[in-house]
Amino acid sequence: MRTSDNLHELAFFKSALVKEGVINPIENVLNWIYTQNKRIKTSVDQISLADMKRWKFDETSGNLSHESRKFFSIEGIRVKTNYGNVEVWEQPIINQPEIGFLGILAKNIKGVLNFLMQAKVEPGNLNCVQLSPTLQATKSNYTKVHHGKSPLFLEYFNGQKQGLTLLDQLQSEQGARFLRKRNRNMIVQIGEDEALDLPENFLWLTLGQIKELMKFDNVVNMDTRTVISAIPYGSYNSDTLTFFSEIASPDKINLKFLASILNHELHLHTLDQIISWITKLKTKYALEVTSIPLNKVSGWKYDGRSVVHEQKKYFEVIGVHVEINNREVIAWDQPMIKPAQEGIIAFIVKNINGVCHFLVQAKAEAGNLDILELAPTVQCLTGNYRDGQSEYTVPFIHEVMDAPQEKIWYSAMQSEEGGRFFKEQNINRIVEAPDDFPIEVPDNYCWMTLNQLLTFLKFNNYLNIATRSLISTVSF
Amino acid sequence: MRTSDNLHELAFFKSALVKEGVINPIENVLNWIYTQNKRIKTSVDQISLADMKRWKFDETSGNLSHESRKFFSIEGIRVKTNYGNVEVWEQPIINQPEIGFLGILAKNIKGVLNFLMQAKVEPGNLNCVQLSPTLQATKSNYTKVHHGKSPLFLEYFNGQKQGLTLLDQLQSEQGARFLRKRNRNMIVQIGEDEALDLPENFLWLTLGQIKELMKFDNVVNMDTRTVISAIPYGSYNSDTLTFFSEIASPDKINLKFLASILNHELHLHTLDQIISWITKLKTKYALEVTSIPLNKVSGWKYDGRSVVHEQKKYFEVIGVHVEINNREVIAWDQPMIKPAQEGIIAFIVKNINGVCHFLVQAKAEAGNLDILELAPTVQCLTGNYRDGQSEYTVPFIHEVMDAPQEKIWYSAMQSEEGGRFFKEQNINRIVEAPDDFPIEVPDNYCWMTLNQLLTFLKFNNYLNIATRSLISTVSF
Repeated sequence: MRTSDNLHELAFFKSALVKEGVINPIENVLNWIYTQNKRIKTSVDQISLADMKRWKFDETSGNLSHESRKFFSIEGIRVKTNYGNVEVWEQPIINQPEIGFLGILAKNIKGVLNFLMQAKVEPGNLNCVQLSPTLQATKSNYTKVHHGKSPLFLEYFNGQKQGLTLLDQLQSEQGARFLRKRNRNMIVQIGEDEALDLPENFLWLTLGQIKELMKFDNVVNMDTRTVISAIPYGSYNSDTLTFFSEIASPDKINLKFLASILNHELHLHTLDQIISWITKLKTKYALEVTSIPLNKVSGWKYDGRSVVHEQKKYFEVIGVHVEINNREVIAWDQPMIKPAQEGIIAFIVKNINGVCHFLVQAKAEAGNLDILELAPTVQCLTGNYRDGQSEYTVPFIHEVMDAPQEKIWYSAMQSEEGGRFFKEQNINRIVEAPDDFPIEVPDNYCWMTLNQLLTFLKFNNYLNIATRSLISTVSF
Repeated sequence: MRTSDNLHELAFFKSALVKEGVINPIENVLNWIYTQNKRIKTSVDQISLADMKRWKFDETSGNLSHESRKFFSIEGIRVKTNYGNVEVWEQPIINQPEIGFLGILAKNIKGVLNFLMQAKVEPGNLNCVQLSPTLQATKSNYTKVHHGKSPLFLEYFNGQKQGLTLLDQLQSEQGARFLRKRNRNMIVQIGEDEALDLPENFLWLTLGQIKELMKFDNVVNMDTRTVISAIPYGSYNSDTLTFFSEIASPDKINLKFLASILNHELHLHTLDQIISWITKLKTKYALEVTSIPLNKVSGWKYDGRSVVHEQKKYFEVIGVHVEINNREVIAWDQPMIKPAQEGIIAFIVKNINGVCHFLVQAKAEAGNLDILELAPTVQCLTGNYRDGQSEYTVPFIHEVMDAPQEKIWYSAMQSEEGGRFFKEQNINRIVEAPDDFPIEVPDNYCWMTLNQLLTFLKFNNYLNIATRSLISTVSF
């Protein structure tokens, strides 16, 4: 049972440095995604919520739920908090009190750890298919509520088949949209000589390749990004660079982030100090969330077709009829969340003590299990800063949106999960702070190294999904 | 802002080795407690819940609450779970949605870290006074709902006065009795030359002394024990023993536990493997807790005096009239929880790879924030194994209760917090496993080193209060 942590952390690190791939060069992967897209015909038509088959507004509860009582339901909540500038509000929220699997199979191929990715179509995807984990299954899926087939490769993640578990964590979903939803994020390694019978929409990629593909808009889905974000790279001392140069040529290594996992002692704040900061804020802020019937949510109404905010803000709950034509036709109806606009999530980073530090925000969101989670420096809807429509000032938005090109270390559009969110995308950005950016920051913000963020990531309900999405894009 | 973790961890360790004290020899401390007890006259009379001043059964909510709506209330919950052998039950529970302070001041005296303890009387205490943290205050206390004085030394913990924060964590309370209650556990160090004006019921003790006093029944209160449990001792290599012998003579050092924080690589399971074990169990078990009015809790009734279980099991909610005569008379009424019997909490420990491992149980309790917390090997009411009244089999109870004397490393009666619990005490015990005790354990159990337990302790809502009570007793 005893294994060394360091061995698989080193294997993850090595795989992250192999950006050109081992068996599938990156150009082929893009072509392959293009082919996968052409193979599949999907139609997603918006329909009235009342016309959805098998879904109904329940008269007793007032909520929108599936006739099986499984999958998920759309309910209402009343939120009271002393965080932020709105003290009380009501909103619709997705209630899915099930823990699903987000599982990636890993395998050593030619000495490099590869990850089995799936080109998967989801009704809300902006691109038709996106690179998804090997297994992406809600409990209703894998317990076969829909009477379909058992999901492929489930047996490696539910314990039926033996593999080496490299990662196995509970991670939170979007706190503004899901009521305390979590998924089980897993990476399981199979033996080098274990041959899998792969359908044509699966292929093996190195971690470096997956991170390269994240530079494109909406290619790698949210579920992949959250699993990838939790990967630990270990701790190294400074002469490890020599060692890394045997894997990748030094000029191809991204030193900007590397120092944030090397030299793990050079942090501005100790872990205990950061825990004290979190403790203080969790003591200061209260978050009281009460369930209420969806049809009683004030400020929102059913307009005969969708559930909408009276001022058309935030999002709508829409109904869709989905048909996916991939050899056989599969069709179903379901509610989805359609955002009023795209959003932005961004980290400001700064070199402190020679090590890249991330400016982390403690943020209360209605669906959080434990009041606050660690969010990016900026996390908001674009309506909050564009077109003079801003409801409130968003700290640091200027530094993020108006950064000169050379300070933008990462920027791409990335989607929320396409099974629940209809074409919802966020600008994902990592921006180096201006040189005169202060080290002193407001109370709700704290500088952390990547190493420290990865430590909190191991323990459930510390890093929110936006933070994890951005961490997943970090490449070396 | 940057300080080295190791420095204060070493100071904690050194203080734990100074068992005879620096300025107050241990005999004097026992005498001092005796004197404190004599100084104070308390009377606690049980009265009918309906007769309590300022408390009432609220007609709208059905709950028992204070007229100010502050302090706490006694409410009902309905629990549904697939953990254990009872799937659905209802029970009264304390709802106190406030985070209180449990704070200890620390100060270097003659080169050794000392802790400022308070001899504090609480209505539910078995001994009249118990050694309590410097500050023990609910939010209703420190925001002065009772119009009393501000608690002593509050200013060091709420940020008004500067000190060096050595520890600052949120920790859970009893999950079977409190609905998701947590306290802020703090240790703040003041300067060596900072003189405090100490009332006669305060005195400075080393950590070693506090741990020696835990060998007596009901001397050190629960609030002290939870704060003490979180103290980190750092990681050392094996020749550190030489160094320790300069502080304490080697024959006075308890080697049994020492190896469990030295040699922190020699664990049976890695931290990632333990996190995977927790993830699997949190995925497997569901815990659904719904608030219901206290007067609608099935299986429980108000008998005209107290709220009792129909078969007199578990506990009663009683009313008390309290008078404390300490120069001036203070009197008030309040509800308390009176247990039907005492309980037992115990760890089985075993030498694995030369390092002491603790057999930890993942346990669901109704008031848990996140389904499961890490509990001791055994945690139950004595009625579950005595007098043939057992409702169910308690694993490992035989190994704990019938252990030969030489295998019992620690055993004492320790109280629950006397502000809410009326003379409630548990056998606290650490027992070495029999030599033939298997390393393979049932699914809900896992072996961990002390180092690993202390790592989980840093992150809120992992270790339950029973585990922390036992960890606090560990001495070196």
